[in-house]
Amino acid sequence: MKAQMPIDFWFDFSSPYGYLMSEKIDALAARYGRAVRWHPILLGVIFQATGARPPVDGASSRASYMHNDFHRSARHMGIPYKPPSRFPLPTQHAARAFYWLQEQDAVLARQFAHAVYRAFFVDDRDISSPDTVLDIAARLGIDRAALAAALQDAALKARLKDACDQALALGVFGSPHVIIDGEPFFGADRLPQIERWLESGGF
Amino acid sequence: MKAQMPIDFWFDFSSPYGYLMSEKIDALAARYGRAVRWHPILLGVIFQATGARPPVDGASSRASYMHNDFHRSARHMGIPYKPPSRFPLPTQHAARAFYWLQEQDAVLARQFAHAVYRAFFVDDRDISSPDTVLDIAARLGIDRAALAAALQDAALKARLKDACDQALALGVFGSPHVIIDGEPFFGADRLPQIERWLESGGF
Repeated sequence: MKAQMPIDFWFDFSSPYGYLMSEKIDALAARYGRAVRWHPILLGVIFQATGARPPVDGASSRASYMHNDFHRSARHMGIPYKPPSRFPLPTQHAARAFYWLQEQDAVLARQFAHAVYRAFFVDDRDISSPDTVLDIAARLGIDRAALAAALQDAALKARLKDACDQALALGVFGSPHVIIDGEPFFGADRLPQIERWLESGGF
Repeated sequence: MKAQMPIDFWFDFSSPYGYLMSEKIDALAARYGRAVRWHPILLGVIFQATGARPPVDGASSRASYMHNDFHRSARHMGIPYKPPSRFPLPTQHAARAFYWLQEQDAVLARQFAHAVYRAFFVDDRDISSPDTVLDIAARLGIDRAALAAALQDAALKARLKDACDQALALGVFGSPHVIIDGEPFFGADRLPQIERWLESGGF
């Protein structure tokens, strides 16, 4: 039996469909003997590099459709969701904190990522604030002062920038973007195709 | 038991996801006692009015993803699909022919719509050409000369323009766009949510 490559999960902490994917991808992958590597990125950087406009822009009919679809899709998937009062938000502090934790404790980093997503999409907290990010970390037993210092570190900022560059090089253009053995799947609504791909090795 | 309103299905004949929806929506609706009203529109008109850019634009990573996803989604749904060599195409002649037929024979109009979609997405025919549209119609026994004359008719052109205006007024911003009792569903990938909505009257 050949070794199974991990799945890569690219996402922005401000992405509702990224949140929905985050609640499902690990358990799904595990059923097929796969690990998942999580990679927070900044959609602002991706959109600027690709020349794309954000999918949710102001008061357009598309934007109002999408706000309704976020909520309906969450209900469809059985995932708690409360529309955040401020949306979207910048997420560089949360993403940097994730990469800092990842180097120390991958399990804790995963718990932190879930906690950030739920803070934003269930508890309506302002995850753009460094204080909120530190509060979330502290509740998981993470050293608040050490993380606060790390968030100022140039090497950590470069780590997030590298992740965005790597995403662009792989053709990532939005969130969530899941890559399985080179095959890309964009959107939480591709979960049924992801499952079929994992089951059959392609179709 | 209250009367069930028909479902509205808005689409462009050049939309791959519209084609995928067209192969499924009637049978799905019928299982829940619903009729479907088909409304071809022109995405060019919709995008111009809403200020949106086409989702598939040139050689971007998004565009190459989408071409792969069209094909993979068709396989996932068990629908024949061959990537057209020219894409997208203008579809005003096909749409006008549909509305002309619709006033005479709704069943024949539905057969014609399926034939146009399959000509484009299975047989790689240039459905932007009036001759191709007339050929497709003639093979269904439709009077070619009468349709050719009708395609020049100002009233028929106005009928398609009215459909696009009506779509915009309803918040349609892409293809396919299905509306059930006021609830909008965008994309062929929303079929599972559509089925659940039909089954439960909302969720």
